[in-house]
Amino acid sequence: MATLAQELTFEQKLDQLARVAIEVGLGLKPGQELLMTASLEAVPLARRITEHAYRAGATLVTTLYSDDEAVLMRFRYAPDSAFDHAPAWLYDGIGAAFKSGAARLAITGANPLLLSNEDPGKVSRANHAVSIAYRPALELITRHEINWTIVASATPSWAEAMFPDDTPETALARLWDAIFATSRINAEDPVANWKAHDAELHKRAAFMNEKRYAALQYRGPGTDFRLGLADDHLWLGGGTTAVNGVYCIPNMPTEEIFTTPHKDRAEGTVTATKPLSYQGTMIEGIQVRFERGRIVDAHASRGEEVLRKLIATDEGAARLGEVALVPHSSPIASSGLTFLNTLFDENAASHIALGQAYTSCLRDGDKLAPEQLAAKGANDSLIHVDWMIGSNELDIDGITAAGAPEPLMRGGEWV
Amino acid sequence: MATLAQELTFEQKLDQLARVAIEVGLGLKPGQELLMTASLEAVPLARRITEHAYRAGATLVTTLYSDDEAVLMRFRYAPDSAFDHAPAWLYDGIGAAFKSGAARLAITGANPLLLSNEDPGKVSRANHAVSIAYRPALELITRHEINWTIVASATPSWAEAMFPDDTPETALARLWDAIFATSRINAEDPVANWKAHDAELHKRAAFMNEKRYAALQYRGPGTDFRLGLADDHLWLGGGTTAVNGVYCIPNMPTEEIFTTPHKDRAEGTVTATKPLSYQGTMIEGIQVRFERGRIVDAHASRGEEVLRKLIATDEGAARLGEVALVPHSSPIASSGLTFLNTLFDENAASHIALGQAYTSCLRDGDKLAPEQLAAKGANDSLIHVDWMIGSNELDIDGITAAGAPEPLMRGGEWV
Repeated sequence: MATLAQELTFEQKLDQLARVAIEVGLGLKPGQELLMTASLEAVPLARRITEHAYRAGATLVTTLYSDDEAVLMRFRYAPDSAFDHAPAWLYDGIGAAFKSGAARLAITGANPLLLSNEDPGKVSRANHAVSIAYRPALELITRHEINWTIVASATPSWAEAMFPDDTPETALARLWDAIFATSRINAEDPVANWKAHDAELHKRAAFMNEKRYAALQYRGPGTDFRLGLADDHLWLGGGTTAVNGVYCIPNMPTEEIFTTPHKDRAEGTVTATKPLSYQGTMIEGIQVRFERGRIVDAHASRGEEVLRKLIATDEGAARLGEVALVPHSSPIASSGLTFLNTLFDENAASHIALGQAYTSCLRDGDKLAPEQLAAKGANDSLIHVDWMIGSNELDIDGITAAGAPEPLMRGGEWV
Repeated sequence: MATLAQELTFEQKLDQLARVAIEVGLGLKPGQELLMTASLEAVPLARRITEHAYRAGATLVTTLYSDDEAVLMRFRYAPDSAFDHAPAWLYDGIGAAFKSGAARLAITGANPLLLSNEDPGKVSRANHAVSIAYRPALELITRHEINWTIVASATPSWAEAMFPDDTPETALARLWDAIFATSRINAEDPVANWKAHDAELHKRAAFMNEKRYAALQYRGPGTDFRLGLADDHLWLGGGTTAVNGVYCIPNMPTEEIFTTPHKDRAEGTVTATKPLSYQGTMIEGIQVRFERGRIVDAHASRGEEVLRKLIATDEGAARLGEVALVPHSSPIASSGLTFLNTLFDENAASHIALGQAYTSCLRDGDKLAPEQLAAKGANDSLIHVDWMIGSNELDIDGITAAGAPEPLMRGGEWV
């Protein structure tokens, strides 16, 4: 039976995605300013979001547009010394916007292959410079000081990377369909649909918080891995109330529950189950070995140099800052697509993240000093990069404080 | 005889405009960052400029794009209280960019009629909020601390406002032709052409600086006006060496020589000879009367409310901060077009500006404290708005310190 929503036009779906982003994802409050980032290819969605933001009472929507072509020109023509430079003035301004009460919405949709033919040394230096400049503002995000969210817009370059055998028009249409479906827009009332989904994620996180496992044990092809959880860790999933008091769902789609692992307690070998698109470079076939929480051996069948430079960013870049559980039957995994975009691919499979831990995943974490956070096992780094380790062949046990294993997932599904 | 340049394609002309903007207008130095502003409709020119900036050695080009549709959505949907709000974080960031050595390029091309149907009260409040937020950064521009320039891109909405009877394609093509012609791109070597034109403007300014007139006397239809010049005033025109040591030509096109009038020494009546497009509102038929430097009576046949609010911005908004002389035979006047854009229209005719004075138009002005500047007659205001008073019926005399009149312009041309 066809539902009303299946008969929505493209423009109506785009409008519903914008509405859900503002009303559910961001929870924008009347009188709030909104700072949005988007690619020039995402103007249509940015405009729909702008209208919903003003209708919700925003005082001002400022969109910082990025242009892939301008980025490529820099790699082609700028002097070598340019790549250690980042616009500190802009990132400081963004931080000031957050401190003055602005909400933050990012439209993702970058070309995952944009920098794949550029010099990895320059790519790494440029990313490093941005990481340093962006850190003060990004900390306000990772500490959930303000309401924020990320939604996706299909773009021609992203669609071409995902569907290289289709015509540009077909590829773009397929990507939009996939975004609407996985962002739960194909329903009669996407706002109610999102609220029910959010409640389900909270229920699962509450179960794990009652269990208080000391560690997780992973077993699958190329993976035999035990990951300790941070002391006083908290599992989170779905929406959260930011420090500014606004309830928001920071990722749309979101299918994961996640917490902070212990930075010194990872042992064994993990093999990625999907490629990682990192700042325009595709890293494939990742396999790493941990000892006492630290990567001691790292390989990739493609993009290994970028992976090595990433891990070498700083001391915390070779340790884990997040662990997340996602059933293999999530809508994104069911789509059978690899999106080449972390927002989607991380919600298709269980994953771990190198780098910075979320302090919100520790009890009273937002009130702890850096040395207190480190003592509980929370990692510290300029980077935070998720990569996928889940599949329908992965088994996961929870290890109790007494050392007893309890089955959590078998063949990628909750038991 | 056709010159080589007349056979350039549109793409080649666009590229030459970008090249002239970077090499002659901005004089961008290797290792400089560039902060650019542009409308979403100006992406093609912004990309050409970005490439020339990187080829000239820029470390980073950051373009802040504005979107007319987003601006209109704010007027249509945002709460009333929104209009007293401006993004201070962004303007502070722009100021920080200037202080850290960035150059500044603005691509002008806004829809001159964008806000003509919006509530003048909201328009005025929004402009006032931006004026306050932007002031610290704008002062670095008016003091010529850094190299900066403004160039124009044709946009569909601007073209439609100028050529409402043409098809959109024809209107856009006509506007581009006019921009290329008046920006002196239709020549075999536009860089050499610009350097010769710049030398000519400097020669004319030097003549006026030798004369050291105490005042100018204007006579024309609806105009009988005497304007005192500031003590130690300096006539400028064409390029200037900014405080950071970089030679730049701040306006492209530029046909004017200009200086600082005495804020307390304007007497009589002036009638505008062209409409003034102010932040999306068209103000037509302006006639004002000055007493002791201050506007005591202001009328307009259209947009009078916006004019009155503009004049009421602050104490200095009703006084003059700039006077400029342009021969009626300038290429812009010769085109016979009204561009509805100050960059062009102010270079088609002699003009005056309400509001903030340029300290660079006073001897050692950049080293003077605010009270010293005021003592010499330099005006102080949040605003700086040019309006056209020149025509082929305007006569101007220079008044010597002894009070003797000397003819400067007759029928709009230098004698």
